Parts: sequence; C-alpha cells; structure tokens
Amino acid sequence: MYRKHTCGELRIAHAGQDTTLAGWVQTVRKFGAITFVDLRDRYGITQLVFAESLSAELDEQPLGREFVIQVTGTVVERSNRNPNIHTGDIEISVKGFRILNRSSVPPFTIQDDTDGGDDLRMRYRYLDLRRNILKRNIELRYSVNRSARNYLHEHHFMDIETPFLIKSTPEGARDFVVPSRMNAGQFYALPQSPQTFKQLLMVSGYDRYYQIVKCFRDEDLRADRQPEFTQIDCEMSFVEQEDILNMFEGLVKRIFLDVKGIDYTDAVQRMSWEDAMWHYGNDKPDIRFDMMLCNLKKPDSVFTDKKDYIDLIDGAGFNVFDNAETVVAISVPGAAEYTRKQTDELTDWVKRPQIGMQGMVWIKCNADGSIKSSVDKFYSEEKLKAIAKACRSNPGDLILVLAGAEERTRKAASELRLEMGERLGMRKRDEFKLLWVLDFPLFEYSDGDNRWVARHHPFTSPKPDHISVMINNDPSIADPAQYLAHPYAQIKANAYDMVLNGNEIGGGSIRIFQRDLQEKMFAALGMSEEESLHKFGFLLGAFEYGAPPHGGVAFGFDRLCAILGGSESIRDFIAFPKNNSGRDVMLDAPASIDDKQLDELSIRLK
Amino acid sequence: MYRKHTCGELRIAHAGQDTTLAGWVQTVRKFGAITFVDLRDRYGITQLVFAESLSAELDEQPLGREFVIQVTGTVVERSNRNPNIHTGDIEISVKGFRILNRSSVPPFTIQDDTDGGDDLRMRYRYLDLRRNILKRNIELRYSVNRSARNYLHEHHFMDIETPFLIKSTPEGARDFVVPSRMNAGQFYALPQSPQTFKQLLMVSGYDRYYQIVKCFRDEDLRADRQPEFTQIDCEMSFVEQEDILNMFEGLVKRIFLDVKGIDYTDAVQRMSWEDAMWHYGNDKPDIRFDMMLCNLKKPDSVFTDKKDYIDLIDGAGFNVFDNAETVVAISVPGAAEYTRKQTDELTDWVKRPQIGMQGMVWIKCNADGSIKSSVDKFYSEEKLKAIAKACRSNPGDLILVLAGAEERTRKAASELRLEMGERLGMRKRDEFKLLWVLDFPLFEYSDGDNRWVARHHPFTSPKPDHISVMINNDPSIADPAQYLAHPYAQIKANAYDMVLNGNEIGGGSIRIFQRDLQEKMFAALGMSEEESLHKFGFLLGAFEYGAPPHGGVAFGFDRLCAILGGSESIRDFIAFPKNNSGRDVMLDAPASIDDKQLDELSIRLK
Repeated sequence: MYRKHTCGELRIAHAGQDTTLAGWVQTVRKFGAITFVDLRDRYGITQLVFAESLSAELDEQPLGREFVIQVTGTVVERSNRNPNIHTGDIEISVKGFRILNRSSVPPFTIQDDTDGGDDLRMRYRYLDLRRNILKRNIELRYSVNRSARNYLHEHHFMDIETPFLIKSTPEGARDFVVPSRMNAGQFYALPQSPQTFKQLLMVSGYDRYYQIVKCFRDEDLRADRQPEFTQIDCEMSFVEQEDILNMFEGLVKRIFLDVKGIDYTDAVQRMSWEDAMWHYGNDKPDIRFDMMLCNLKKPDSVFTDKKDYIDLIDGAGFNVFDNAETVVAISVPGAAEYTRKQTDELTDWVKRPQIGMQGMVWIKCNADGSIKSSVDKFYSEEKLKAIAKACRSNPGDLILVLAGAEERTRKAASELRLEMGERLGMRKRDEFKLLWVLDFPLFEYSDGDNRWVARHHPFTSPKPDHISVMINNDPSIADPAQYLAHPYAQIKANAYDMVLNGNEIGGGSIRIFQRDLQEKMFAALGMSEEESLHKFGFLLGAFEYGAPPHGGVAFGFDRLCAILGGSESIRDFIAFPKNNSGRDVMLDAPASIDDKQLDELSIRLK
Repeated sequence: MYRKHTCGELRIAHAGQDTTLAGWVQTVRKFGAITFVDLRDRYGITQLVFAESLSAELDEQPLGREFVIQVTGTVVERSNRNPNIHTGDIEISVKGFRILNRSSVPPFTIQDDTDGGDDLRMRYRYLDLRRNILKRNIELRYSVNRSARNYLHEHHFMDIETPFLIKSTPEGARDFVVPSRMNAGQFYALPQSPQTFKQLLMVSGYDRYYQIVKCFRDEDLRADRQPEFTQIDCEMSFVEQEDILNMFEGLVKRIFLDVKGIDYTDAVQRMSWEDAMWHYGNDKPDIRFDMMLCNLKKPDSVFTDKKDYIDLIDGAGFNVFDNAETVVAISVPGAAEYTRKQTDELTDWVKRPQIGMQGMVWIKCNADGSIKSSVDKFYSEEKLKAIAKACRSNPGDLILVLAGAEERTRKAASELRLEMGERLGMRKRDEFKLLWVLDFPLFEYSDGDNRWVARHHPFTSPKPDHISVMINNDPSIADPAQYLAHPYAQIKANAYDMVLNGNEIGGGSIRIFQRDLQEKMFAALGMSEEESLHKFGFLLGAFEYGAPPHGGVAFGFDRLCAILGGSESIRDFIAFPKNNSGRDVMLDAPASIDDKQLDELSIRLK
C-alpha cells in the first residue's frame, strides 16, 4: 500500500503517530519558507506542512494542482483548527515526499464552483468526477443500490441475471440491434427491459426476482433521457396488487431511511388515475402542496362520473368559456395582491408555446371580501363569488382560469399549478411525498394507426371485472372521432405508478398469466397471430405449462437517485453519461468502424 | 397473497393450524378414494391429502402435473414421516382448492433424472429451470453474488456502473457493435470488459471500485464459452501487487465460507508463471495433486535458468529423445502394475489429435526394485534408475515420458498429468485448492503479424525493473525464428491469475499509469500514434492529469459459480444461456429484422 491512512481518517487521537498518506494536491500555499498543501482523496482532505528544511527539495520538484504524491510524516495538532472538515484538528508535519505522478493544468478548476462549461466537463468527465458534488452523487447512487439490495434480499428476492443479446420485438420504443457475425443477416436486440424474462422466471417458479439492470431504448433523446438507463426490476408470484404496493413502498421507505435518514412512517397515499387527472391534470401529481384543479367545465367524453360547475360559467355570453371543451381553475393562495404586471406576465407564461394556451382569466378574491376579475364584463360579482366558492378559494387568493381543448388545457393547468407551487416555495427540496397512482386505462388510442396501444405494456392484465369487456368486444374502432365511446376506452388496468414529488419513479402491473387472454391482448393491439407467435411465442408457450399469477414493478434507478439527491438531472448521477445526441463525447462514440468489421458482419452502410 | 405459508415452511409445530398454500402439482397419487398430491414451490414440497369428500370435486376438476393450484386446509402430523424433506413431518388435510392455471403435459419430466435431451431443455428453458439441479445452481449463483458484494462493501469498494454503449477498439477479441440511428454510419460497441472505465474511475479518485457486470465477446464459441458473460470486476488505487493478492484471496475465501461453508484458512499458494509451466506444463495448474513434470530435456530458448536432466537421456542413440526439443516425464504413483494393454491404451490416448503426440515411452518402477521400460534397448537399468530418481519416483510408480516440440509436448504432458490425476481419483470434487500464478510474460509473439501482442492486455505494467528493457529496445523483430532472443520476450508483467482446481477463475494486473509508458506500450503492439490516439486518446489524456498507481482483477463469475457448484459447464449456471452457435433457441434469436429498422439505421444486408 502506498498509504497507511486515508486523507479523511486522521483525528486528534492520532497526534504523535507517524503515517504515510497518498492523494492529490488540492492547493499549495506558501508562507515564507513554509509550504501548506491540502492533500485530497476519496475520503477527505488533510493539511500537510512542509517545513523550511524541505524547501530545497520542493524547489527542485515543485508541486502543482492535481499532482499525485505520497508523503510520510507525523500527525500533529493544529494551532488553528478547521471545524469544516473532519480532519481539521490535525495536520501532517511532512518528513519526506514523493511525486507519484504529475498533472498538467486541468482544463477547469476542480472545485464546487468550477469554471468549466458543460461540454468541457463532459469531455473530461474523469476530472469532473473528482468534484465533490459529483462524488456525492455517485456515492449516493451506490448507497441506494446497496439499500435496495439489502431490503430485497431480506424479503427473499434473488438477483437473477437475464440476457442482453435477445430478440428484437419493437412494440412501443425502438430497439438497439446488434448484427450477428455467426448468423449472417440476423440481429440480436438489446433489452428495453427484462420484462418477458422475469415473467418466465415466475413461470419457472423463482417466485421473487430482482435485478438492478441496464436497459436500452433507441429513442430521440429529450433533455433528460439516456439511451442506456438502469432499472431496479422486480417480480413476484402469487400476489395481488395490494401485496405489490406494500412490498415496494416498503422498499422506497427503506431507501429513504438508509440513504437520507428519513423515517417515512406515513402510509403512502393512493389515488386513482382518474382522480389524478381530474384534480391535478397529471398522472404524476406533486402532492407536496394542494392547489387542486377546479373543473368548471368537463369534456363530454371523459370523466363521465365526475361533477363540474358548468352552471356557474355557462350562458354568460363569454365565448371563450362557452366554446371551450374544458375550463379549469386553480386558486393560488395569497396571490390576490398580484399587480396587473404580474398577471400579465403569468398570461404570457401560459401563452408560451410549451404551454400553448390562448390566454388566461384571473379572479382576485381580495382580502376585504370584494372580488375583481378580468371577465367582470361577463360575470356578476355574485357569479364570481360562486366560482370562488367552487374553487374553495379564501380571501386573498388569486384564481387563474384556463380554457380550451381538454388535453392541452388540463396539461397547461397542471403546468401552471406546478409553476405557482414553485414560485410560492411549496415544492420543498427536503420534503419527500410518495403517491401510488392506480387504475390506469389499459389501452391508449393511437391516432396514426387508428388502433389501441398498451398504455403500460402488452403484458399488463385488465382489472378482473373488465376482462369480460375485453373478451366480448371487437377491438376495431369504426369511427376514430368516437374512439372514447368504444368499450375498450373504459377498461382499467391492474397497473400502478409510484410517484415521488411529481416524478414517476416506478411503475408496474399485475400480469396476464393465461395464454388465451394474452393472445386476446396481442390481437387487440393489432398483432396478427403469426406476428405474436414470432415475437412472443416463447411466452405464450410458457403460459401453457402452469404459469402462476404474478406481477411486478420497475423503478427508474437514475431518476430515483437524482430526486433523492435533490437534482432534476439524471446525468449528474451517472458516472459516464451520454449527451443529448446520444454521444459519449469523452470516448468520441459512436464512431465509424473498419470495413473489415462490416464485412465480417455481412452488412454495408447505406 | 395467494398463500399464507410456502411449501417449504411448515413443521410439526404448525400442526392444528389452518393455512393456505399455492404451488405446482409435482405428483398425484390415488389410494382408493383418497388423493395425495405433492405441492412444489421454490422453497420445498408439501404433501396434500384430499379426503373422500373432495373426490367429486377432483373428478370434475382433475389435477395434472405442473398445474398451479391454491389449497386451504389444516396442518396435521403425518403417520409415515418422510425424513428426506424438511416438511416431512406434516401434511395438509385439504378443505378446499382452486386451480389457478392448468398445464399441458410438459415436453420432458421435471425431475432430477429428466428424460429431456439438451436441445429440448434449452428450448423450454423455463421448464428446465424448475428442476432442482438448476434451481440449486441459480441459488448458488445468487449467494456467490451476495457474498462478493458484502465482502467488497465491507472493504469500501463501491459498485459504480460503467456504460454498455461504448467505442469499438478491437485489440484481441472481436467487438459486438451496435449501429447508431442518430449518427448514421457510426457504431457503438459493447464492452469486452469495463477495463478503461475502471481505470478512469481510479484517475477520478474513486479508489476502490467493483461491478458484477455483463461483458461481450464476438468470438467463435468453444464448447463452454458464451458471447455474453459476467465478471466480478474490481480496481484499487495506491496499491502494489501484494495488496491486490491479499484483498482478493480474501474475497474468494469469503465466498468459500458463505457459499460452501469452507473455512479456507491456508495461505493461498503462489507460483511464478515459469514454475507453473516448468513443473505442470500449464499456466493454471491443478495443485490438488502432485505428479509434477520432470524436465529431462529443456528447449534451448526458454527456461534459461532451469536445470534439466539431459545428461541422463543424451547419447544413448535413442533418436526420439535426441531429436526432440523437449522431453518431459511424469511419475504416476502406484501404476507400475499397468498391463501392456493399459500402457498401449495410454499411448493411443496421447496420440489422439487433441493431444497430438507421436508416441509415449513408459518406465515401470516395480515394487521389487527392478525396472522395466519400453526403451530397454537404449537405456541400461542403471540409466533408467537414474531417470527414475530424477523423476522422484517410488517403487510401484509408472513413469510416462513424452518427447517433441516444446509447446505441444509440454501441453500434452500437462493433459496427461490431468488425465492420470482424474483416473486415479486425485481430483476430488469437494476439495478446493487456490493458487496465484505470478510473473507472466508481458508480451506474446504473434506469428501472423510478426509482432508482439499483450499477453494480458495493453494496460498491464511491466515489472518495475523491466521497464527500462521495454523503453530502451526497439520492439521490431528482425528474425521471426529468433523472436525468443528478443529482449521483449524476457519482460515480465505485474500480472497475476487466480487458479482454482486447474481453472483460471480470475486475473488482473498492476496497470500502467504514466502516459509515456502507455504510449510506448501501444507502439510496442504495433499501433501508430494516430491509431492509439483514436482508440485510447481519452485514457492517454486522463493519464496527464494526475493518475494514481492502480491495479485490479476480474473474476469470471460464471466459471467461478460452476466450479463451486461442482460442474464443468457454465451454461448450467446461467438462467438463459446461448447454445454453442450463439443462439438463444428459446427466443429464436438472433433473427432477421424489419427493412424499416435497417433503413432507420442506414445499413443494408450484404
């Protein structure tokens, strides 16, 4: 070993001992003939003191930032202690040193407030990873990993590896494929998830499976997506939805405890998908704050059993509301004092292309009980007060109303709610609120193909009492405009998402385990029998030999770590991420390959 | 939950309790009106008793092998206990049952002694995985995984994930490549190992890294190779070889203890590569038994400092020995009684193409002290006795002598030694002997290209006192026939392999961490500066900014599990393996893909 202690280890109790340390030179400071060096390693920083007797040697072999050195010396008590670091009570009186490796001047400073831009730091990722902030992220990621494994082990889950070179079955996202040299003209695919394999393991009787595993999706990358990402992937047999919810909220609570020291004893809140959409405009609501949507007018075709307040806004001659499919309001607490400039700014905000509204109506519920709005021309004070009551507004609140087509308007209202929550400081970094969203629709309508697609995936089972609806109805959609009237639109799935502070961190379902129902599902998704056998014949086959009831969940490991680390960016929690074009700029990959390689693989470029 | 207890859980203490079980029907046996069912799950087997009162129901819904059922009933003491299973003291008096899923008749019996052939079982892998023997293997694999993680965690290693979509840098084995859709004409590669990434993590200061990680090699598959395989991959900074050896023999000992209950307290034996080749003809000797090679004649160009016994065989007019480059013997204990038929059979054995010898000489050291050989014509009894003495033979031993070209002969002697060890029962299944093989040559000579290739990989450092040999000599080889005379042939590496019972289970090295030495290495391997910058520029760059001394090891996880499980076949320890053509016959992968996919990837088939 090049060292006897690490740079984070020595305390006042070690004073008087001889030691050897090795690490990186963080700073060099000279005071006359004496030189102070901060030596850094993974574990901390220790101050070194080079006395005058070493100055000739230091002149001959000067130390620079990020040099790797080994020093021997004696631990001594510091006169001016540094309470900010664990080793702040001591320093090393250096007897001798050795430069193990020199360093050029780094392209950016290796400090918390670095001067390096994003691109530069990605190119020199190995230097960026030296910074405290990234080191803490990588350490946090490992502790989440460790905590999850411990919990799952204690609950009899087994880590079983599933293959990476599998078969391409594009349904939903695009596969990455791998040409096979030994089978010319044929390709493997990289797994988008181990879904079918974990189900096979249940058929094999393995009962409780997990993996922390890389998955691959060849999608156009949005700001915070990676072509390769990691899942905590789990599956259980002989369970119902309730068992899964309990087991895996236990997992997340354990991670909170182990990683953040948070004893999350509250029961995890549960909400149906319909309620989430109705009250929050979103299937992953941030429930750290209230400010629920008030549905003044609901669309004809969805939320059939919900009650709106159309009588309060209808027939006042205000065309914007009258012609809209949906009108929703939020009541922003204590914002009645907003100036015209502020409400105009909010109107501009909702008119941005990302939000896409035409305008915004505001209603001020003044503290003195009076009421004022941007639609006074159309609505009497009495009407406005009735609207405010429907919105459960208090004096001092500012009501913001959006109107338009259902999907866009509901989404805009959700965005506006999150924005106002952010502005009012209601989305606290150190508060963590879990939520199960349940009862998702089984199908989604695909415009382009005029057919149903699986909202979750084709292996998710319908709610038991919806199975007959699925079996007894033809999936084809006669009139695309009326797709919501098709019985399939009402089928709910045995599916669930776990939401943390407005982010989906995991999701899963109880699976189909009967061959006939699985065949019906593939047919409902427009797959021919031939196609479903070609793609999933092995699974259909497996269901013939005693498949047990089973279900599972997959957590987005990167995202979970990012949220626990208080960040929005998953990239900061991945040691070697790709950029937004899917490139590794450090490696300069992907890259061209040799013609010889192409030849061997029996492919050509086009 | 569909069950209250598992099928492996109930004991006599539960007698009288009501329970619910779920699992697979292993067997159905009728005795008159009473039906006995063995119900199986991951945890064991429990006997169910269906009384006469249930026979009508059973007639209506007959149970078959591998049906999945749920039963409720009462735990009762068995009259005829079964001591072979943990639940053998009790049975369940069934009150009611429900068929959760039916099963077709499986294509082979799901028993230890199955009637299914290899191909059939690969196709229905999900059924084969139900068999006890495979279940035990998968469970063993998980316990090795868990044990390794625990040890490494306790020693401050962090699991840090490295990317799977990297850059193709073929050097040694072929890469699998992945066409990039977003970067037309460019390719990612799948990692053959995370080698360069773990080194970058050392440069980043992470100090102790590990991963249990999939790696990929597109090689022509030998019997027991897989295109994707798993490594326990580790790296440490600020260490010398001695530190690595201690740390990782600790890891393997811990696995022995946790997984096999073996307290391996002996120090792990160490042997130089030269000694391994000299005494065992092999760089991964099985040291469970002795029977070392006796070198009667060594080749001119290698083993320059070893002593042979050429004076004992030379000048007797026996051309086979006189003309051979190498003559080696083994002394097989207690085999002097072998008949002519037996020695002839052994001679045939060494003449098989896999061994490739022209013949074999035998010398019998009879129990009465007399000596007899197949070369009595050439060697006097006195000479033969001197040879027997050199071979450290005892009365009763049979000496077998091989002669020929160095490489083939040494390999054949090694194979013969292992074969005789096997025949004599010296390779005990339940005995585990670890060995470190050290001081490997840094380079190997590549015939085809008349250049040096890295024996381990290009990142392995030479022994410190061999660095100057490497720096001060031109790597080019003037006369291919004399390559052994080149100074590079004598350079030894800071590399080590861990050998278990004659199998290499892991290997590693202390790495180069200086840019100039790494550049010299690339040049020695015939890489132009441009090529080395294109392929490994990121690593050379990293070495400029304070790279610490570091080294590591990678264990072949599949093989380690197989050996611990007492098997030679890694396939039995992988849940979903490929066959010898790299195909997954269950999935039928690889397979052709859609033209649309090819189009999107900008490639065509040739």
